Amino acid sequence: MSIVGAIEAGGTKFVCSVGDDNLTLIDQVSIPTGTPDDTMPAVVDFFKPYLADLKSIGIGSFGPIDIQENSPTYGHFTNTPKVAWQEFDFVGYVKTHLNDIPVAWTTDVNAAAYGEMTQIEGDSLVYFTIGTGLGGGAIQRGQFVGGINHAEMGHILVRKHPEDDYEGYCIFHGDCLEGLACGPAIEGRTGIKGQDLPEDHQVWDFVAYYLAQAAMISDLTLAPSRIVLGGGVMKQEHLIGKIHSEFERLMKDYRPTPPLEDYIVTPALGDNAATIGCLAMAKELTKG
Amino acid sequence: MSIVGAIEAGGTKFVCSVGDDNLTLIDQVSIPTGTPDDTMPAVVDFFKPYLADLKSIGIGSFGPIDIQENSPTYGHFTNTPKVAWQEFDFVGYVKTHLNDIPVAWTTDVNAAAYGEMTQIEGDSLVYFTIGTGLGGGAIQRGQFVGGINHAEMGHILVRKHPEDDYEGYCIFHGDCLEGLACGPAIEGRTGIKGQDLPEDHQVWDFVAYYLAQAAMISDLTLAPSRIVLGGGVMKQEHLIGKIHSEFERLMKDYRPTPPLEDYIVTPALGDNAATIGCLAMAKELTKG
Repeated sequence: MSIVGAIEAGGTKFVCSVGDDNLTLIDQVSIPTGTPDDTMPAVVDFFKPYLADLKSIGIGSFGPIDIQENSPTYGHFTNTPKVAWQEFDFVGYVKTHLNDIPVAWTTDVNAAAYGEMTQIEGDSLVYFTIGTGLGGGAIQRGQFVGGINHAEMGHILVRKHPEDDYEGYCIFHGDCLEGLACGPAIEGRTGIKGQDLPEDHQVWDFVAYYLAQAAMISDLTLAPSRIVLGGGVMKQEHLIGKIHSEFERLMKDYRPTPPLEDYIVTPALGDNAATIGCLAMAKELTKG
Repeated sequence: MSIVGAIEAGGTKFVCSVGDDNLTLIDQVSIPTGTPDDTMPAVVDFFKPYLADLKSIGIGSFGPIDIQENSPTYGHFTNTPKVAWQEFDFVGYVKTHLNDIPVAWTTDVNAAAYGEMTQIEGDSLVYFTIGTGLGGGAIQRGQFVGGINHAEMGHILVRKHPEDDYEGYCIFHGDCLEGLACGPAIEGRTGIKGQDLPEDHQVWDFVAYYLAQAAMISDLTLAPSRIVLGGGVMKQEHLIGKIHSEFERLMKDYRPTPPLEDYIVTPALGDNAATIGCLAMAKELTKG
């Protein structure tokens, strides 16, 4: 029996999984994100019982992280706001404690994009996660987009809605895409969590306007087969329709796109996109 | 002797060239852009004397064009505003009249990006041309970016400068990036052509703000080895420094970039970027 592993490393929890060759989950555990000393021993302990059959592990991590293969700090966190994790050698730790197992390593949102790729015919996809933060990653011709660095599409400046006077939540940029459309930015304007706001609250018009711009930038830059919007904020089911309307209004029939209900969508894999993506990345490694 | 050909098909002229294996120009002609019936016979006539040695031709064309290899209208113009060229089968015409010669086919701005790639070490690059219109193209891992369509980065919505009340020049979107920063948009605000405006005119602050946003989107989405800004507007030599300042102000040290004077630059090949890119694309074809 041959199995593959997944680590979805998020800001609040690490979800560790093992799956079979069909990417079907066999076992999974959720570990709260503490310091590396708290969290990492529990991560490797989860995988140890499977080590005899475990071929490889895919990791999708919060960031920023170093994914440049020729870099001396490949596999490390860089200047992440989570101070305890700054410069921590994530890939090195996993390999050291798990018999030098092959590791595939990318951002959490890239991993989710990779997961959603298993659900489409095409070879290109953009994935945004809109939750506590807002991140974006992309795939073209089956490979992650990114030259000297990984994508950080959450920090793009979007055009401000004329009635939105919120100063924004991003500690770097204030009112960038993340600063205007992430969960805390919704609560920051209203004092109420998104899930408790009525569907006709104006903040949803603002969020739809900003996410439609993110989709428009994705289309005009990468023209992917699919644009996936995931994360906690997208659990508001009324939101995707509002985003479709705004996208159409902004694009003004400039060029044809696929039908929007197939083109700009919520994740086919739901909350499992990143875990399935990590398993798929791990499986891809074993082909080499 | 083995030579390669280039057709840089622009809105006002077609520049046809032949070059040697080192991409050194041997001969070149400029043909005004009329209708296909006017222009195309002159294009093929230029290449005919070289046909015995000509291995392939690279074309970089104004658009929109169909570059999807599996499409029945591959090689055609699509809904270009130049009505006489709509649906014209450019690649088919060239192959029919030049002994079915191998043809590489992409947008004019992708061709320019390919040319500038010959000038760097890395394998990713973004190219914007800012002139009569504003177009953007990109390369990742040596391949043009684009999934179901080619990049059209000129039509991204940028954040409006608070003091800029110009309604914009783009016939589709009004005040998108092209509508705010192309040459006619500069003249549209001032009644004066860009080259005749003083360096301290406020319109340059606006243009720098918008082009810095284009560079920021490029960095955060594609993180290329280099971002090249070409076209007539960039002949204003004071502009690139203003763009660097705006880029720094907008990014707010979010993550490190290469030194800006090496990262966001005017074309190393000047006005020859697209022609050299077409020759390089043609040469690449002959490797297969």
